[in-house]
Amino acid sequence: MRNGVNQLKTTLPDGRVVLFNQHEHIAYTQDYSSATPENPGAIVFPNDITDITQTLSVANQNFTPVTIRGAGTGKSGGSIPNPEGIVLAMERWNSILEIDEENHMAVVEPGVLTKTLQDAVKEKGLFYPPDPSSLEICTLGGNVAENAGGPSAFKYGVTGDYVLGLEGVWGNGQAFSLGGKRLKDVAGYDLKSLLVGSEGTLAVITKITLKLIPYPHYIKDLLLTFNTVQEASRCLRQIINSKVQPVAAEIMDRTCIDAVREYSKDSDSIPDSGAYLLLQCDGFTLESVDTQMKVMKVCAKEYNAQHIMAPQTGKETDSIWALRRNISESLKALSTHKESHDIAVPPNMIPNYFDYIDSLNTRDSIKILAYGHLGDGNLHVNVLNLGLNAEEWFDEKLDLEYELLKKAVEMGGSITGEHGIGKSKKNYMDLMFSATDKLHFKLIKNLFDPNNILNPGKWI
Amino acid sequence: MRNGVNQLKTTLPDGRVVLFNQHEHIAYTQDYSSATPENPGAIVFPNDITDITQTLSVANQNFTPVTIRGAGTGKSGGSIPNPEGIVLAMERWNSILEIDEENHMAVVEPGVLTKTLQDAVKEKGLFYPPDPSSLEICTLGGNVAENAGGPSAFKYGVTGDYVLGLEGVWGNGQAFSLGGKRLKDVAGYDLKSLLVGSEGTLAVITKITLKLIPYPHYIKDLLLTFNTVQEASRCLRQIINSKVQPVAAEIMDRTCIDAVREYSKDSDSIPDSGAYLLLQCDGFTLESVDTQMKVMKVCAKEYNAQHIMAPQTGKETDSIWALRRNISESLKALSTHKESHDIAVPPNMIPNYFDYIDSLNTRDSIKILAYGHLGDGNLHVNVLNLGLNAEEWFDEKLDLEYELLKKAVEMGGSITGEHGIGKSKKNYMDLMFSATDKLHFKLIKNLFDPNNILNPGKWI
Repeated sequence: MRNGVNQLKTTLPDGRVVLFNQHEHIAYTQDYSSATPENPGAIVFPNDITDITQTLSVANQNFTPVTIRGAGTGKSGGSIPNPEGIVLAMERWNSILEIDEENHMAVVEPGVLTKTLQDAVKEKGLFYPPDPSSLEICTLGGNVAENAGGPSAFKYGVTGDYVLGLEGVWGNGQAFSLGGKRLKDVAGYDLKSLLVGSEGTLAVITKITLKLIPYPHYIKDLLLTFNTVQEASRCLRQIINSKVQPVAAEIMDRTCIDAVREYSKDSDSIPDSGAYLLLQCDGFTLESVDTQMKVMKVCAKEYNAQHIMAPQTGKETDSIWALRRNISESLKALSTHKESHDIAVPPNMIPNYFDYIDSLNTRDSIKILAYGHLGDGNLHVNVLNLGLNAEEWFDEKLDLEYELLKKAVEMGGSITGEHGIGKSKKNYMDLMFSATDKLHFKLIKNLFDPNNILNPGKWI
Repeated sequence: MRNGVNQLKTTLPDGRVVLFNQHEHIAYTQDYSSATPENPGAIVFPNDITDITQTLSVANQNFTPVTIRGAGTGKSGGSIPNPEGIVLAMERWNSILEIDEENHMAVVEPGVLTKTLQDAVKEKGLFYPPDPSSLEICTLGGNVAENAGGPSAFKYGVTGDYVLGLEGVWGNGQAFSLGGKRLKDVAGYDLKSLLVGSEGTLAVITKITLKLIPYPHYIKDLLLTFNTVQEASRCLRQIINSKVQPVAAEIMDRTCIDAVREYSKDSDSIPDSGAYLLLQCDGFTLESVDTQMKVMKVCAKEYNAQHIMAPQTGKETDSIWALRRNISESLKALSTHKESHDIAVPPNMIPNYFDYIDSLNTRDSIKILAYGHLGDGNLHVNVLNLGLNAEEWFDEKLDLEYELLKKAVEMGGSITGEHGIGKSKKNYMDLMFSATDKLHFKLIKNLFDPNNILNPGKWI
């Protein structure tokens, strides 16, 4: 392993390979998950494709682990390096290569921040919908690697729905170019989709062609409060049955709301409530948006909403969305430890899943809560430590983790809706996949990365 | 090979295996492409999963080719059997197992006709958008195998965008269940997407879970005529630049229009013109649809449209769409031979591609024309024989085929936008794929179907 790092030092041009230094490079040892940080042997900052193919070539010769890294905002430990391995840092590949207004497409390097692209295309009247909460600090390459979602996925789909083309280098060192500036293409097996969500285990992505859509002309938001999350969930089902398709339908339970009220020291403008349902709709005309808003308000009344708040100014809208964005920070302030999962279930099972969470909440020392993408059935389930010592907490959280994930799968869901398996969920693959499935995954991995140099020790 | 058929006869229950009989089973020898028909040794009509796994098991033991067949409406020869091989006829698997109104999903067997599902879900206010022209006679299993598109793909995407779950049996005999009733799921490699568009070369699909959306409340159509297809194409680019997203944007060139006028003996209601642009838009309110229509009409005038026709009744709408639907039949009536390709190019390259077609149209004996999905950049390019003898025609069409496909790829496009490679395009894979790409395809094929029993002799 060490050999690989040393050989790279002499192979690549000066400055591309930096030996790991705990003091300077602490950020490269971890991501936004609670997985244990690890120290790599070196960090490679490639300048061009040759740097990447040479890195992979040396790694293949020496069986040196290579962990590709965007901004390290992943929530499943996917970009935590192997001890003494290489971090392939793509953060400098941050150019928007083209915004093709005629075709409604963008061509970007993987290190471009999601928000940077959204802002750039919005100026041209175009829209790149995928909006993970970390959009201001996460990279499009990471979004592709994880097939990231976000609130707008309810109407507009996830990252993979916008990927038209990918260029890069497979783990075996072969360069590839899959898809491109074409909206339809059914030639050959769809290796592009195989790569989306592959969590850095198959290839290094160097260029991404993304589909854009016209920026929605009118957008409105609506905040509803309910006594219970179950009521809020049923209200949304009714909205959907009325054939309204909200852009986003985000839910927050009482614990989240209390935490945000306390964290923001604002219990006046944030009403006390059992559940918040934050809705957004858009359309080509103001009238069509207002009609959708009207339907949603009717459903809200029918399902006993306590408050119906439609922000009138940009500032009011921002403050409503700030509630949602501040949850994670507010919860951290509330507890000594916090573990976050992102289960997905069939959307109509959400009330039952909330019931299940209620049934587990029997102690003061530990608290389970959920918020997130109600429309897609994708919840961020958090477990908070409110009084256990570290050892008790560790045992408890493992037990609860297993139960929470198992229940999602039993309901027909997934152990991860948008964060990926990475390191954090690798022990739970058996909940979803048969021995044959896992064998097929391994054989595919082996095909593109025969020496298992790309992100070893993660889920595959 | 023969051994496989004989062994199946004794293995499967009575009535499941029918020996091929030229008289009764002629339909099973071909599809809707111009590829040469072949006589299989037997046709298997499976009743349940066991019949399928046994068929694959016997085929694996005897290296007997198995060609899975839906309704045989494919346009690339994908369901043409191997001589003496087995046709696995899925046409009786035609139950809609569930329309899940709460989750906006449907669970179907692969033999359900596309239109049957569309009609069934429309009754519940739901919409299954993918609409290949053959939707009244093609199956959803075939649509998944080919990743079929259609006019509505411009706004709503292709079949693969609606596939949430697939169940079936890999060529190696292992059963699988991929995805399910969940809108978000990033666990493991995306084998479901690998299977979509795999043209019956990897697995037998036995159950499909599809995403539905609310049925659009209001739909309107607009027929524009222009002097040239180039003008029509530029008009559509302007509509899109005005941030209107039509559901469909279909184009027909002069030859198509002349053929339909002649075929339908209706030169009164079908105006003489160089190009038709057939647009559809939809929305949540009538007002939003009318606003889109207004924008489209402004663009039409700006780009010198000759006629602007907005049908006012259902009958008028049907007759406008009949123009588009009757093209293929009308062209057949016009020529002794007809060869159809479905190239895709970056949408803004369409005018250039039409220029290229013009440049090839230098003789009276052979005519090249194009119609289809202008919005996606996906054209059905047809070559008509208007006077060559069979031998001359064969040579000419091969030359033209190569040139037409090569040009699409040179423009950044694909040799097939929605019909698949099958038998018809297998010799043109080199235009798009490197030796490494093709090796990767073969290794993937080998992983799931190691004895190469599923649809051998096609593109892979």
